[in-house]
Amino acid sequence: MRAVVITRPGGPEVLELREVADPTPTKGELLVRVAASALNRADLLQRRGMYPAPPGSPKDIPGLELAGTVVACGEGVTRFAPGDEVMAVVGGGACAELAVVHEREAIRRPLGMPASVAAAIPEAFMTAFDAIVLQGGLASGQWLAVDAVASGVGTAAIQIARAIGARSVGSTRTEAKLERALSLGLDVGVHGVTADLAKKAREVTGGAGVAVGLSLVGGPALSDMIAALRPRGTAILVGLMAGAKAELNLVTVLQKRLHVVGTVLRSRPAEEKMAVARAFEDRIQPLFEGEAPLLRPVVDQVFPMEAVAEAHIALEKNSAFGKIVLFHG
Amino acid sequence: MRAVVITRPGGPEVLELREVADPTPTKGELLVRVAASALNRADLLQRRGMYPAPPGSPKDIPGLELAGTVVACGEGVTRFAPGDEVMAVVGGGACAELAVVHEREAIRRPLGMPASVAAAIPEAFMTAFDAIVLQGGLASGQWLAVDAVASGVGTAAIQIARAIGARSVGSTRTEAKLERALSLGLDVGVHGVTADLAKKAREVTGGAGVAVGLSLVGGPALSDMIAALRPRGTAILVGLMAGAKAELNLVTVLQKRLHVVGTVLRSRPAEEKMAVARAFEDRIQPLFEGEAPLLRPVVDQVFPMEAVAEAHIALEKNSAFGKIVLFHG
Repeated sequence: MRAVVITRPGGPEVLELREVADPTPTKGELLVRVAASALNRADLLQRRGMYPAPPGSPKDIPGLELAGTVVACGEGVTRFAPGDEVMAVVGGGACAELAVVHEREAIRRPLGMPASVAAAIPEAFMTAFDAIVLQGGLASGQWLAVDAVASGVGTAAIQIARAIGARSVGSTRTEAKLERALSLGLDVGVHGVTADLAKKAREVTGGAGVAVGLSLVGGPALSDMIAALRPRGTAILVGLMAGAKAELNLVTVLQKRLHVVGTVLRSRPAEEKMAVARAFEDRIQPLFEGEAPLLRPVVDQVFPMEAVAEAHIALEKNSAFGKIVLFHG
Repeated sequence: MRAVVITRPGGPEVLELREVADPTPTKGELLVRVAASALNRADLLQRRGMYPAPPGSPKDIPGLELAGTVVACGEGVTRFAPGDEVMAVVGGGACAELAVVHEREAIRRPLGMPASVAAAIPEAFMTAFDAIVLQGGLASGQWLAVDAVASGVGTAAIQIARAIGARSVGSTRTEAKLERALSLGLDVGVHGVTADLAKKAREVTGGAGVAVGLSLVGGPALSDMIAALRPRGTAILVGLMAGAKAELNLVTVLQKRLHVVGTVLRSRPAEEKMAVARAFEDRIQPLFEGEAPLLRPVVDQVFPMEAVAEAHIALEKNSAFGKIVLFHG
């Protein structure tokens, strides 16, 4: 098969399309013909040699999510058969014509949705769902705050919040992105920095603060997210775009009995990845289907797989609204 | 009745024993003749005017925990009758001859235990149980780290850990206190600062780290507690003796998927206080009874209620091992 290979640590120029050996599905696994994959910041880190693939994933083929069609099944597979359309988060190797996915980590693709759209779903929506609902406990009537509302995870989070009866307040420093976020279901937009978000989050909740704060930027912004929380609220840290250090006001953490939770999908053990995928297929996947779906994948641009280096450059520019997708043809 | 009154914000000299009106039990409440109470750091803060009593508690009578005997019951009380020996955490007002406690927040006193010993139980053991077991999820086979092992909550936490089949590693800067903690059931003692605790915590767990870290000192020590945790571990912040600011390494929080949880008992709503008290009576209170009880209250010194100012001075010295109790006679 052809695959994008990280030939050495470096810039986008180290990515090469090469002929490599086909992967083989073992017990419980699906062999998937990948029709489209999507980019994540983790791909950029891995390309630079700063984020090695977890054990069991291809070492030098990037790509953490895919949409495709099952072409073969390993022993004991019961949920899928060749021809089934699936999508999945994988530990790596999605940037290739073929990839192997455990059947319990694979998710049915929404009916009638093209692969180049569905590829924008898995990582963003699963990360958002796991963070705000499964870990943060966000429920109807409650408020969510998001500090990078135009990102893949941010656009997913505000849609999930709206879909389950919660409301969201979110910030971005780019005004045009804010308008698009509002059109996706963001209730209250903040054009500014995270201190402005905290202020607005308290304002819209009558001074109380939000139940769940999703921090995609991390760094000093985490303390703003904590200031945005209501008593017993949860701040969930899923990204570190703004840095790796935060000074927290522990009086607030203690007196408001806050929870600060760090999370990442990629390094989880198999049983947890399967559990999240199953909960996602049960509770979120159906919301992408029907006449007026509650959730919509947000695709910024689609590049052919051959243009993977350009796609990486586009992601690094930080100007995307939603996901950058690779079409594998 | 006679009660200790905070006559104005200030040092121990502002405490006066005064004649005040008896409290009256209303629906569901017990009137308790307080035989003994115990001191907490919150009493010192309240005396200095820095920690007002929550609504519904006496404003100027300190005291957050008591042991005594029911002398009257409000309407609808079913769990207790006059003559029953009880103990409880209260929002304030324990430093008096009489106090009112809701029957669902009151706990049966261990059979045969004098009030001046039982008074050392409620706040320390309930805080420790709630933090490490109910919130931290500590279970058999797991390790707990505690950063102020000689404190009331510290001595309670190491005993609870031992009682439920968990192990503990804890630190103190006073060597004599460490020996006493080891005799109470601490498995591994660290005579030193919290950085030493983090190192030892990783060492005794084969590099993995502990499941639950109980931080009584807060401040910069919280980042040491985070360094002591295993992946998916929980650091629970219950005190701020070392300060109100902490700089956290968010890479560790994110990659290890840690939980950092702030907690305090006093400001909780009634339903939560009741729930903790009921869980405590069910799971912890029985361990103080029998021929060879698994848990023992740790009393440093007993002062007569009249000597409350001296008792405050003793607590402020920070040299106590366990609790300082007031005997109300």
